Amino acid sequence: MNKLLVEDIIKNGLKEDINYFDAATDLLIDEKSQSSAYLISKEMGILAGIEVFKQVFEILGGDVEFTQNFNDGDSLKQGDVILELFGNTRTILKGERLALNLLQRMSGIATLSREFADKVEGLNTRIVDTRKTTPNLRILEKYAVGVGGCFNHRYNLSDAMMIKDNHIQAVGSIKKAVELGKENIPHTMKIEVEVKNIEELNEAIEAKADIIMLDNMSIKEMKKSVEIAKGKAVIEASGGVDLNTVREIALTGVDVISVGALTHSYKALDISLLIK
Amino acid sequence: MNKLLVEDIIKNGLKEDINYFDAATDLLIDEKSQSSAYLISKEMGILAGIEVFKQVFEILGGDVEFTQNFNDGDSLKQGDVILELFGNTRTILKGERLALNLLQRMSGIATLSREFADKVEGLNTRIVDTRKTTPNLRILEKYAVGVGGCFNHRYNLSDAMMIKDNHIQAVGSIKKAVELGKENIPHTMKIEVEVKNIEELNEAIEAKADIIMLDNMSIKEMKKSVEIAKGKAVIEASGGVDLNTVREIALTGVDVISVGALTHSYKALDISLLIK
Amino acid sequence: MNKLLVEDIIKNGLKEDINYFDAATDLLIDEKSQSSAYLISKEMGILAGIEVFKQVFEILGGDVEFTQNFNDGDSLKQGDVILELFGNTRTILKGERLALNLLQRMSGIATLSREFADKVEGLNTRIVDTRKTTPNLRILEKYAVGVGGCFNHRYNLSDAMMIKDNHIQAVGSIKKAVELGKENIPHTMKIEVEVKNIEELNEAIEAKADIIMLDNMSIKEMKKSVEIAKGKAVIEASGGVDLNTVREIALTGVDVISVGALTHSYKALDISLLIK
Amino acid sequence: MNKLLVEDIIKNGLKEDINYFDAATDLLIDEKSQSSAYLISKEMGILAGIEVFKQVFEILGGDVEFTQNFNDGDSLKQGDVILELFGNTRTILKGERLALNLLQRMSGIATLSREFADKVEGLNTRIVDTRKTTPNLRILEKYAVGVGGCFNHRYNLSDAMMIKDNHIQAVGSIKKAVELGKENIPHTMKIEVEVKNIEELNEAIEAKADIIMLDNMSIKEMKKSVEIAKGKAVIEASGGVDLNTVREIALTGVDVISVGALTHSYKALDISLLIK
Amino acid sequence: MNKLLVEDIIKNGLKEDINYFDAATDLLIDEKSQSSAYLISKEMGILAGIEVFKQVFEILGGDVEFTQNFNDGDSLKQGDVILELFGNTRTILKGERLALNLLQRMSGIATLSREFADKVEGLNTRIVDTRKTTPNLRILEKYAVGVGGCFNHRYNLSDAMMIKDNHIQAVGSIKKAVELGKENIPHTMKIEVEVKNIEELNEAIEAKADIIMLDNMSIKEMKKSVEIAKGKAVIEASGGVDLNTVREIALTGVDVISVGALTHSYKALDISLLIK
Amino acid sequence: MNKLLVEDIIKNGLKEDINYFDAATDLLIDEKSQSSAYLISKEMGILAGIEVFKQVFEILGGDVEFTQNFNDGDSLKQGDVILELFGNTRTILKGERLALNLLQRMSGIATLSREFADKVEGLNTRIVDTRKTTPNLRILEKYAVGVGGCFNHRYNLSDAMMIKDNHIQAVGSIKKAVELGKENIPHTMKIEVEVKNIEELNEAIEAKADIIMLDNMSIKEMKKSVEIAKGKAVIEASGGVDLNTVREIALTGVDVISVGALTHSYKALDISLLIK
Repeated sequence: MNKLLVEDIIKNGLKEDINYFDAATDLLIDEKSQSSAYLISKEMGILAGIEVFKQVFEILGGDVEFTQNFNDGDSLKQGDVILELFGNTRTILKGERLALNLLQRMSGIATLSREFADKVEGLNTRIVDTRKTTPNLRILEKYAVGVGGCFNHRYNLSDAMMIKDNHIQAVGSIKKAVELGKENIPHTMKIEVEVKNIEELNEAIEAKADIIMLDNMSIKEMKKSVEIAKGKAVIEASGGVDLNTVREIALTGVDVISVGALTHSYKALDISLLIK
Repeated sequence: MNKLLVEDIIKNGLKEDINYFDAATDLLIDEKSQSSAYLISKEMGILAGIEVFKQVFEILGGDVEFTQNFNDGDSLKQGDVILELFGNTRTILKGERLALNLLQRMSGIATLSREFADKVEGLNTRIVDTRKTTPNLRILEKYAVGVGGCFNHRYNLSDAMMIKDNHIQAVGSIKKAVELGKENIPHTMKIEVEVKNIEELNEAIEAKADIIMLDNMSIKEMKKSVEIAKGKAVIEASGGVDLNTVREIALTGVDVISVGALTHSYKALDISLLIK
Repeated sequence: MNKLLVEDIIKNGLKEDINYFDAATDLLIDEKSQSSAYLISKEMGILAGIEVFKQVFEILGGDVEFTQNFNDGDSLKQGDVILELFGNTRTILKGERLALNLLQRMSGIATLSREFADKVEGLNTRIVDTRKTTPNLRILEKYAVGVGGCFNHRYNLSDAMMIKDNHIQAVGSIKKAVELGKENIPHTMKIEVEVKNIEELNEAIEAKADIIMLDNMSIKEMKKSVEIAKGKAVIEASGGVDLNTVREIALTGVDVISVGALTHSYKALDISLLIK
Repeated sequence: MNKLLVEDIIKNGLKEDINYFDAATDLLIDEKSQSSAYLISKEMGILAGIEVFKQVFEILGGDVEFTQNFNDGDSLKQGDVILELFGNTRTILKGERLALNLLQRMSGIATLSREFADKVEGLNTRIVDTRKTTPNLRILEKYAVGVGGCFNHRYNLSDAMMIKDNHIQAVGSIKKAVELGKENIPHTMKIEVEVKNIEELNEAIEAKADIIMLDNMSIKEMKKSVEIAKGKAVIEASGGVDLNTVREIALTGVDVISVGALTHSYKALDISLLIK
Repeated sequence: MNKLLVEDIIKNGLKEDINYFDAATDLLIDEKSQSSAYLISKEMGILAGIEVFKQVFEILGGDVEFTQNFNDGDSLKQGDVILELFGNTRTILKGERLALNLLQRMSGIATLSREFADKVEGLNTRIVDTRKTTPNLRILEKYAVGVGGCFNHRYNLSDAMMIKDNHIQAVGSIKKAVELGKENIPHTMKIEVEVKNIEELNEAIEAKADIIMLDNMSIKEMKKSVEIAKGKAVIEASGGVDLNTVREIALTGVDVISVGALTHSYKALDISLLIK
Repeated sequence: MNKLLVEDIIKNGLKEDINYFDAATDLLIDEKSQSSAYLISKEMGILAGIEVFKQVFEILGGDVEFTQNFNDGDSLKQGDVILELFGNTRTILKGERLALNLLQRMSGIATLSREFADKVEGLNTRIVDTRKTTPNLRILEKYAVGVGGCFNHRYNLSDAMMIKDNHIQAVGSIKKAVELGKENIPHTMKIEVEVKNIEELNEAIEAKADIIMLDNMSIKEMKKSVEIAKGKAVIEASGGVDLNTVREIALTGVDVISVGALTHSYKALDISLLIK
């Protein structure tokens, strides 16, 4: 992760949460007071974001030290002491909420990602995220997906060309759209085409799309698509994927399954900071 | 909501999502092309964030018009056409993802908030949010909580004084902490004290705290607390609240129940933009 | 004070004052030159902002050390050496003007605040500031008011609800306005109502406003208001307050007197930096 | 004035003052409500900043119209209606405080500047400001000085070279310092030298400084300096200038008198916004 | 191009160039004065950046109208009137320098790009840019390269994986590096490997790199590389390319030639704004 | 140079170049790996920007150390090792491109500036830059001009008053324009007038302009202008200056020659970073 982008998120977050002062802490805690604190997992899950967690306190003052017992990607069980903190009490109290808000969300995403990844264990299928991330926090969320054992789709509208319905309609055919793409985009960029049926699939293959997304197909259609397209393009399944359906979809032989829920419908992992 | 703060979120979001260009749209869609589109609810829920949704397209170019059928707070059922858009196709396609990412999250929060609010219908208890919001998006999330029929807790560390464990320890007693608070904070600011048992509750009442938060108490303790404190301070229950327990907690007579899940563990509401 | 907000003010201030280089210092002072300097009070007053003063030099380079003889809130007399600096001469010369501009203003506010505070000594009345602060510098000015022995009113439009004339007119009555407020604002937020006469005062009390502001009342009316409202709401006097009138107003028994002049019409305290 | 810089000040000011919402206005005023309002002078003075005042409301929403009766530089007497506003009530109420905070300060500076300017009427002496401006607001304050009939000194450390004590000491002599300056600075930039006595004055003249600042000289010394330097350099007097002493200083024949008080110790002009 | 990013560049540029006011224009030109102006090419070249040119005046005030005779990509000869402007004189004079600084640079890049593109006419080789762009202006420069008939390489370090010397050394072999890449990067991202000789080329092919960059190879080596790799990967030549050598390199059959000079050593195209 | 402004350029540059991660480096280089690297000149030229180069790595992490062999202004020949770096490999690889992009441009400008400066050696003429700088990078480019032995013209529109054609037309005469200027601008600011012929030159002298710019005059006219104006104003030649014509122009006796090409048409100096 680019630390400069994370720094902006943290600084905005601290201004949002503290505004001009921390009424209770600034009035009641001596500015030289020091404390120990423990970061404890209250439930099972996958840790993600521990560097971001620490960066919050560095930005707030740099007067807190850490003893780290777990790293991103580690499995946590209830009661695990992830990290011990020792340092300025005011810094710890002021950073606590933001640091947890980030860590819990990132770990929530990693935990859900791990569940999806486990569902396709042993298969040659990747679970990937989407652009359905929380606005302004994409860098953190996409990172957490990777920590959980899933993979990233394109990061933004400019690092891969995804040709959808409306684009195809606008230029007349998949063939024309892919051609126009190939003629114009950087040679370092891939083209993905969204298809709704076998006919479009065939067009996309013929057009030599790098990736073909099967949009909301039935299991049966997906199987047929895989038979036709395997090895000719990366095949991505999309639409209506959840923990119940993902393995069945993977078993059709698609290379990639994209899952919006990884970043739009996760639950924060329950992690607490206990200050002694 | 302060539109200037929302503008910052949207501009950051658009830079994050588009970066330097939209490969497919900028290459394949004529810059003067115009389209109609429909914003459709794919499931039941409460709408929140429709002004934010529209502001995305205004910031992108201002060349899209809206016909609005539903307002924030309205109940949506599957298939409802929330809004019709007509305007520049590129603007619509470039803003689509961010606008939906915001609207779906805000509506997800409103929908969950409505569920909580419904659980305490007929009772004199407010469900409120916490500071466990998504960093950088607090303004949107707290607004959505209100749209769903719940209420806001303090916005940040400087607009109310919340005295917790560590603060009390630092100064020696609840009494001392509240006194120091009253002597120093603005006369426009309230003091809330977190208590773990009846003894602390009594201290907080005696100290004339404006609000007393019962931290993770049992139903029985809460009932006792209400008996003691009712009318002397606003009584807030906190900890371990979910849709199953919230009514029972409310029935203890507490004035306020704070629920972190409202903003940290909601699911995005399924809303789609269909472009013709 | 939130150091991140102060950092923004200082960085903007340094860009404003230096722009691309310091013509005299960058051309004439060796970049390794070191100097001692003294921060000296040229008149009596109250010191405020010494941490902000030091932060200027930290942001400029961090190569200046300080020996501090006075702290915020201390009384200064003419000739007092507040602080000694030793370090990089360029850093000292480049930061001097901004550091003084901030310190002199903050100390000017603290000094004026102390004068007001002294006027009500022995009485149970607080002098508070208003939102009539210098735009972009509110955090510094409100802090300085506190250093001088006065208190802060609400910080901004969202951390307390102040119901004024126009709001009352819009909804029809004080009663209705307060009711709407109580139903909607966070339970952590107070409501203040501005009243112009006894009739409105009675309405506000009945509506259970937390704070009632007596707007430009005569001493006689204030006394009567205190008789009626004492103990039922915090009573705030506002309008036409100066050093000559403040004690008489305080003697009416009001709890709070708000004084715009604290932040809009102070004089900078005369403090100099002497470089050896 | 560069409107882009003013826009930044206004946007920061609005975020500072409103934060996430305006509790009273957003809850009690209908979003379509429209009002008339009057901007009224409560005391005599010089108007400055009326365009900035209007820009606040433009940035907030652009839904307010203005009928303007006075312009910057006009003399106001008590009761003058400077401007009439008509438009969205919420916009008017939310912008009121910031718009007034800026206008009152700018007009306060213009008023004080006019007093100084009047003191030297008929003489060939300019009163100028200094870099002792409010950090982040220099653009507004320097503009207001001009509106009041005084003039600006250099704007920042990079648009003129001011050689002071420490610079002279560092290079050994005034002669050497000016030489080094002339050899290195842009040919579009002037050099000013601060001198404490006649000896230094002569050195500065010999070195062909463009401007010579007489630092804290007595009236007698100033007269002598003028005799010596008149016509050879612009002569600037500085130090201990106030409304009582300024004319006597001007009568010595100096070309320029710099007055820090213009921007560090003015009083806000009393101007009110009355909303009907 | 993402207009929001361009807006940031323009706003920074205007603050840099104007700072607090335009001394000559603000003092000497009436604020209501209107003028006509002509944008004229003083030499042959390719136009690029005309929308950016216009955006400068929109951001400055929006009170200038344009009649456009040429579009991006058009060939200009000496004397061509590219655009006519009519509007506020102050706006035109204040925006002139920045608008030209941007347009001349972009057109300079497009002109040089066209020269390179022309050199490989009729061949199946693309000329592409590099990351050797002017910091903060990459979006404009990469766009201009495309306008001139060349193509873009990857935009930044995160939208394609370029494996260089040091990366290979760090993991031990090209094979290992590509494998690690394929296992971890998004399926939408391509891998490019830099090779110095035929041995490395063969490794890269075997590893199934998407793109292979021949780093500073001789024409002979390039030919051999093309024989080996054609059709197995996109082949990119890099190093020591100029207008004299580019065709010879293209004739080796490489698919892509990257040329740093396109963005690091172009000359601004001579374009003037004549104000009547 | 003001380091705070340079910091903004570097941070923007790093975000532009890295975006969310460095695909190759973050995946293939161990985060604790350390490397040595050499900064080597590949051609003759003048070094400029070495502090900026180093600041890039400081901002990225501060974990790189430097051994510096050359300073800004030094002549480089092919093969010179300018600087040795030792530190975190990831930091070195991520900062390399931006650091070089800045250093190569700045050194390119310094090198071209030195060529111009050498052309007028022995003469009393300064070569100066113009406002034709790369938008957002003026601070770096103007600094590099000075490193190369040329000088700076005014930095922006507000630090000197340049009266051009349109300004003169607007007020009626050079005399009137200069008068208006002198009456209004700071006493620390100079006035430059652009003249096209001897008649205008005489007017400008009479008006006591500080600087007179001879706009696109022939050598003969310039000589005549110098005869007339020498010693009465600084004489600046402008227009159509290149390395072939500059000495002849200087020999006319003008004081200053302004050359846009210094910053708009330089070539980046070829400097490489070799990582071991």
